[in-house]
Amino acid sequence: MTYCLALRLNEGLLFLSDTRTNAGVDNISTFRKLHVLQPGDDRVFVLQSAGNLATTQEVLDLLRRDLATEGESLASVNHLFEAALYLGRLNRQVAASHQASLGADATATFLLGGQIAGERPDIFLVYPEGNYIHASDDLPFLQIGESKYGKVLLEVAVRQHVDLRTATKVALSSMVSTARANISVGPPYDAAIYRNGTLDVEEIRIEANSPYLSELGEAWFRHLLDGIHDLPPLPSELLPE
Amino acid sequence: MTYCLALRLNEGLLFLSDTRTNAGVDNISTFRKLHVLQPGDDRVFVLQSAGNLATTQEVLDLLRRDLATEGESLASVNHLFEAALYLGRLNRQVAASHQASLGADATATFLLGGQIAGERPDIFLVYPEGNYIHASDDLPFLQIGESKYGKVLLEVAVRQHVDLRTATKVALSSMVSTARANISVGPPYDAAIYRNGTLDVEEIRIEANSPYLSELGEAWFRHLLDGIHDLPPLPSELLPE
Repeated sequence: MTYCLALRLNEGLLFLSDTRTNAGVDNISTFRKLHVLQPGDDRVFVLQSAGNLATTQEVLDLLRRDLATEGESLASVNHLFEAALYLGRLNRQVAASHQASLGADATATFLLGGQIAGERPDIFLVYPEGNYIHASDDLPFLQIGESKYGKVLLEVAVRQHVDLRTATKVALSSMVSTARANISVGPPYDAAIYRNGTLDVEEIRIEANSPYLSELGEAWFRHLLDGIHDLPPLPSELLPE
Repeated sequence: MTYCLALRLNEGLLFLSDTRTNAGVDNISTFRKLHVLQPGDDRVFVLQSAGNLATTQEVLDLLRRDLATEGESLASVNHLFEAALYLGRLNRQVAASHQASLGADATATFLLGGQIAGERPDIFLVYPEGNYIHASDDLPFLQIGESKYGKVLLEVAVRQHVDLRTATKVALSSMVSTARANISVGPPYDAAIYRNGTLDVEEIRIEANSPYLSELGEAWFRHLLDGIHDLPPLPSELLPE
């Protein structure tokens, strides 16, 4: 399984992905699920994937192959939403080409974000069916994979005005919570940070043995525990002495 | 959907269930999913259910009908695990009787807890297939229904030595987190508290408009938010200024 999330903030975009993949519990490996593509000076894309690993890799290979052609590609689209539709079409085609042998197991889901010069930076969730949604303005985040464990924190803490520094802490806390509750999600983690208007993405890998990662996890889980003791005392009708 | 959880602590057992049911988004209702059965002075059971509402109600009706017979019932079993197996058999039979029309949609999952005099109090998860598991000694909780949203907190905070008062706050925080992230889980909430050896269960309903519930939710979500600011500062290699 997988956990990827993307945030769209006033300051920029933030992407975070785990790297754990598994085909059964005895075949666990590490694969990059976050990819940066810069097919021109006027555009940059960040792609995150969940679902069938073979499908996501074939889709990525097709995306890169198409860049060298005259046809539709991430270099030729005029708008971000067209990039999302193009990615959705490739994704559907690859899954369909393996459907006879794999059925629904061949499907994949993507997050696509970035900016094309002159347009607002944005993030999209691209479904296996080939269609997409934007993030909402009220809760400007999207998730794919094991999205439930770390969702509440995003609902509470992700707003457009949040700065990238705070948002990175939110995203990492959501990630370490997910990894703690679900063995199929794990480090190293890949982050990508896009500051609006720069058309340039900072990529960061956070290794499993990163001292900051352990510090953050410890602090976050201790904070959760402390929170219980800070809650208002139970009224006596709720729990008699 | 549903969220039910049960905790097995040194002091006693704690059960918490939501009440929301839905058949599509336009048919939402409130049904009790937590039931206390005391079929003798030497035993008490708490039952929580998730899955097909019709199946869970039919299983409950059968459990109660069997109490008036000479055959196997919650009154006749000698051990808690036999109660779990008996419940599992009824559950499987009811689901099987509706399988032709409903398929897997007819299945239900139960948490069963309580004490039979002379035995250790315990909690069980009873699967649609009719088998069961105990809670583990290391993480002495079980969940059914929408279990992912509120799992991390339980993993962090539920240990055998935790007192019932603290455990009630943990369970409620896990519940309000789940309800915030998933509209299919909601109040009123039913709690049952069993103090070991008493053979008597305290039942508490927490209404949707309970002032304590809003206080607790506000405090918990504010605490989550505050936690982000208390995390160690991001090192510069992780996010350059």
